[in-house]
Amino acid sequence: METLLPKFDSVFSIDCVIFGFDEGELKILLIERNEEPFKDWWALPGYIVEQEESIDHAAERILYELTGLRDIYMDQFYTFGDVNRHPQGRVITVAYYAMIRLNGSKELKPISNYASKAVWISVNDLPKLAFDHEKIFSRGFEKIRNKISYQPIAFELLPEKFTLTQLQQLYEVILNKKLDKRNFRKKMLNYGILKELDEKQKGVSYRAAKLYKFDKRKYTRLFQKELTFGK
Amino acid sequence: METLLPKFDSVFSIDCVIFGFDEGELKILLIERNEEPFKDWWALPGYIVEQEESIDHAAERILYELTGLRDIYMDQFYTFGDVNRHPQGRVITVAYYAMIRLNGSKELKPISNYASKAVWISVNDLPKLAFDHEKIFSRGFEKIRNKISYQPIAFELLPEKFTLTQLQQLYEVILNKKLDKRNFRKKMLNYGILKELDEKQKGVSYRAAKLYKFDKRKYTRLFQKELTFGK
Repeated sequence: METLLPKFDSVFSIDCVIFGFDEGELKILLIERNEEPFKDWWALPGYIVEQEESIDHAAERILYELTGLRDIYMDQFYTFGDVNRHPQGRVITVAYYAMIRLNGSKELKPISNYASKAVWISVNDLPKLAFDHEKIFSRGFEKIRNKISYQPIAFELLPEKFTLTQLQQLYEVILNKKLDKRNFRKKMLNYGILKELDEKQKGVSYRAAKLYKFDKRKYTRLFQKELTFGK
Repeated sequence: METLLPKFDSVFSIDCVIFGFDEGELKILLIERNEEPFKDWWALPGYIVEQEESIDHAAERILYELTGLRDIYMDQFYTFGDVNRHPQGRVITVAYYAMIRLNGSKELKPISNYASKAVWISVNDLPKLAFDHEKIFSRGFEKIRNKISYQPIAFELLPEKFTLTQLQQLYEVILNKKLDKRNFRKKMLNYGILKELDEKQKGVSYRAAKLYKFDKRKYTRLFQKELTFGK
């Protein structure tokens, strides 16, 4: 069939904002690029979509090649299409995000050679990023900040057993504000969504705190009943 | 600067899902295409992003050219990037949506000649659509269905003065279910977000219904206080 499509020098790319919570800090995964013109720059894990792959598949493949992570459930959150966002040509990038449970934020091993390393870095301590990746990160952060008010995302980031301090820290870093400890605990306990365990924190020398679990059924229900008006 | 970008035959496009509420029905704007291979097919208003324009600008331009509508506030909601979604080559499309207040759903006038007409059609009565536009529409509909539970969108679709029947119809078509009239009215009136006016519906021969307005301040606040826990 004759094609009516114009011939443009344009490519699609994928960029990933992968959130993890560790040591009381919200972190994202960054790579150090290994190619000009951004050699040695920090960037979000991302690269070009191949001609013959879907964007969802590209997102999985690229994250794996750059960080060794796989089987991570990612969702699109925004597509960035300003004309001059890439110095080498027209590149429209589809941004994906994921929230994962970190078990110690050790350095990850890139498989592809277009990154020299992949590291978890606190969102409060980000280096200068390549391209428009600061903008992409900010939008991703805004996404989870909004989401925390209508979906149960603390689940996805906290370990299965956690302390109230960890829970509060998570809310504080995502909402970007200090919360009153007494108030926070009272509210959280009143919701009836936390199950107190017969266990305490391990590896803490002084005053180990109690551990809690979410009552998943109640937690999810709490987030469903919000504004059900009309229903 | 030497470019490292590959040369792909790929283009970006924009597709728009424009919602309006009229005569008790949720409608979207469709165009009839005027070009092969989809001549005479119904499709969402959409076309190709030019090499030198941002995707946001393209969305405005394309909607205007196809429907004559302008200054419509649109938001991206999803990017569709399956390999074979377009019969003529690799086309990744960024989908935008908008909700607008309809004043009589008359036919609109395309300015560009790649559409022969632009018409408001009820979401319950859609014809077969070109490309993967049914999928794009469904995802857009899902978007506003989710949104109605955490953001005040009835505002954007209803006329400034409306009857309780209109309000209920709007919720029913978006949530896609019948609601109990007595219950719905009781809930809505209890929220204290509706202001009863000293006016009745015009142009109705029999039992004209009372008109209401939203108390915007209260309505917005209701949607903010939902799940503010941790805040």
